[in-house]
Amino acid sequence: MSKTAEIVAIGTELLLGNIANTDAQVISQALSEIGINVYFHTVVGDNPQRIIQALELAKKRADIIITTGGLGPTYDDITKETVAGCFGLKLVRHEETVERLHSFFKERGAKYTANNESQAMLPEGCTVFRNDWGTAPGCAFEAGGSTVIMLPGPPSECVPMLKFCAVPYLERFADAVMVSRNIRVYGMGESAMENAVRDLIVSMENPTVAPYALTGECRLRVTAKAATREEAYALTEPVIKQLTDRLGDVVYGIDVESLEETVVSLLRENNCTLATAESCTGGLLSGRITSVPGSSAVFLGGICAYSNDVKTGLLNIDREVVEKHGAVSAEVAVLMAENVRRLMKSDVGVGVTGVAGPGESENKPAGTVFVAVSSGEYGSEVAELKLGSGRERVRSLSVLRAMDMVRRHLLNWRQR
Amino acid sequence: MSKTAEIVAIGTELLLGNIANTDAQVISQALSEIGINVYFHTVVGDNPQRIIQALELAKKRADIIITTGGLGPTYDDITKETVAGCFGLKLVRHEETVERLHSFFKERGAKYTANNESQAMLPEGCTVFRNDWGTAPGCAFEAGGSTVIMLPGPPSECVPMLKFCAVPYLERFADAVMVSRNIRVYGMGESAMENAVRDLIVSMENPTVAPYALTGECRLRVTAKAATREEAYALTEPVIKQLTDRLGDVVYGIDVESLEETVVSLLRENNCTLATAESCTGGLLSGRITSVPGSSAVFLGGICAYSNDVKTGLLNIDREVVEKHGAVSAEVAVLMAENVRRLMKSDVGVGVTGVAGPGESENKPAGTVFVAVSSGEYGSEVAELKLGSGRERVRSLSVLRAMDMVRRHLLNWRQR
Repeated sequence: MSKTAEIVAIGTELLLGNIANTDAQVISQALSEIGINVYFHTVVGDNPQRIIQALELAKKRADIIITTGGLGPTYDDITKETVAGCFGLKLVRHEETVERLHSFFKERGAKYTANNESQAMLPEGCTVFRNDWGTAPGCAFEAGGSTVIMLPGPPSECVPMLKFCAVPYLERFADAVMVSRNIRVYGMGESAMENAVRDLIVSMENPTVAPYALTGECRLRVTAKAATREEAYALTEPVIKQLTDRLGDVVYGIDVESLEETVVSLLRENNCTLATAESCTGGLLSGRITSVPGSSAVFLGGICAYSNDVKTGLLNIDREVVEKHGAVSAEVAVLMAENVRRLMKSDVGVGVTGVAGPGESENKPAGTVFVAVSSGEYGSEVAELKLGSGRERVRSLSVLRAMDMVRRHLLNWRQR
Repeated sequence: MSKTAEIVAIGTELLLGNIANTDAQVISQALSEIGINVYFHTVVGDNPQRIIQALELAKKRADIIITTGGLGPTYDDITKETVAGCFGLKLVRHEETVERLHSFFKERGAKYTANNESQAMLPEGCTVFRNDWGTAPGCAFEAGGSTVIMLPGPPSECVPMLKFCAVPYLERFADAVMVSRNIRVYGMGESAMENAVRDLIVSMENPTVAPYALTGECRLRVTAKAATREEAYALTEPVIKQLTDRLGDVVYGIDVESLEETVVSLLRENNCTLATAESCTGGLLSGRITSVPGSSAVFLGGICAYSNDVKTGLLNIDREVVEKHGAVSAEVAVLMAENVRRLMKSDVGVGVTGVAGPGESENKPAGTVFVAVSSGEYGSEVAELKLGSGRERVRSLSVLRAMDMVRRHLLNWRQR
């Protein structure tokens, strides 16, 4: 039977929205990987009564309680005394920590002020988690049927102490290993995707399948549980195959980071080079492609042709075409793709022109975008998008579509 | 007496650590600004019993409950029926939403599948929050002494709906108005900035002053509380003046969205045009500048010269210079800035070349970046940056520095 854990983050700065609770995310990921279920996260301020309330609740609904924050030396750091009190434990002075703190301050030429002493006070009988990334130690103890772990709040301390102290401490409770894999989908909405595979989602128990929406794309997560990582991975394999067969070519990758990663891989596989010509996306397309390490082997460069003079000058597009059809037109998009390909001597060229908004342009509403892809081998193709409003949304959806058109264009190469 | 709110985030993906609960952060900030106290955040999965448990608890300990997530069309989106059930309300079909969804799908040429219908089912008598950033509407209602608000989970929908729908709905509960203003700083670290104004931060009560670190830059937030927005704003004025006088020209703006907004404003004020030439940043610089609405009046275009052939070809940089000094050199950065300015006939040109990493290039370690700015009036200047590791970090810090160099170059215009 799987153990359950609850994460209780302590700190008024979280309730004021000064920081996001990224610790809970990292801890949840780590617990999920060792098969410990998390049913609740709670965030509570530096207030003893409300901390006690949160702890009493967590005691009832989870086997393992992990707190973050409130271990430091200042007056509002009250986690240890409050948690220890809740479990009827006293705080005792941990000599090793006192010594470590003294040398920590000495090394940095800083003064060891009296309030630092409180960081060495820990629940009696606990396992001390030495903090090599800061001053306040963490700890773990078992009491009243609960396992309690306390970690510092700053992510630069919490994350390594989770990995090197808390996870090794918790691994004895792990009854299984979970492996999650992701099928990445572009060109089908979350609800359409779910409809297409609903029978599989509903019927599966191990692995489980869950749909998620991302900006402009979506994914299916396949999660299997088994005694070992290898067994769990093997369980996902037939399900991944079944789902990708069903979904077809809207699947752009399995366990890849992004569409740009797939595009760069396809370019490399096919020994193809790419160049971009962008208007409304202003360089975001080339920016995303070059975010992939190693993209320099296949990406030659781009022209951000924001003004019409750059389109007709540097990009050599006939002024008459721009005047007749408008800068936001299928004709101009195609010429952008073709001309940038010739200018940069790349195998594939892509052109994007549109109205990012707010407000219309050339009598075309915001969200009107033309994307063209061109190669010597397979000619040019162009798509007209109607993306609605939201300047950054229009721009990033255009970038995604441009990358997917390049991907589909490259599938031709693969099949020849 | 201030009202209290609890944020209940619903979504198994949060408990698995797939995403951080950034919605809770943004909502907490917004509530804090209108004087509503938040004492707890709860995160719960897509499980009806546990959602009910979280809601019953929130009912007892807060006046206002704000849920996020679970409003979408798929089988695991159960927030509305569960919340409505908890307050004894039925879901009814909201015709306006049905119509909006139909046109949403029609405009995008996508299929309206039956499961989308569930998004138009809303608690009887609720105030519907129209979603102009996605499909699922939000809503608000009063029942059993509680105020309940439901917002979608994706931050791209949750954040604007919070601002345009939820905050206006909640403002009637605010007992005072808080006004927060931001002093934006580039070129000084958070701790140096805090040291420079520490006496002011510590002594102030209304307004309060708080320092925050952002990626590569930082800000000081000045927050005043008063009976009206005008009074609160007036309280911030002398403090803003005192702080900006103290900090000097590292302050790039007050209450601006970003450094790119300041750059575009300065270009417009001075009737100047800009062009960019980018290597390691791959178009991210032009991408950020063109994110500012109206940038087309001052930004002509850019060249992403990723391969050396594009640098020596299209950008017309002497091959010998590249061979002698390397593509990552002060000399090449200056020529990139000068040549793109001439090619695009802009007043100011900016060039960025560097090693984004991972791994060195041309015997230069990752993080070595040269940024140059050039204009006919004030000549060229170049900076060498040593940014350390992390490909995306190096690229975004380079973009920030390039924008700040353009800003400082433009201050010359202003002073003439």
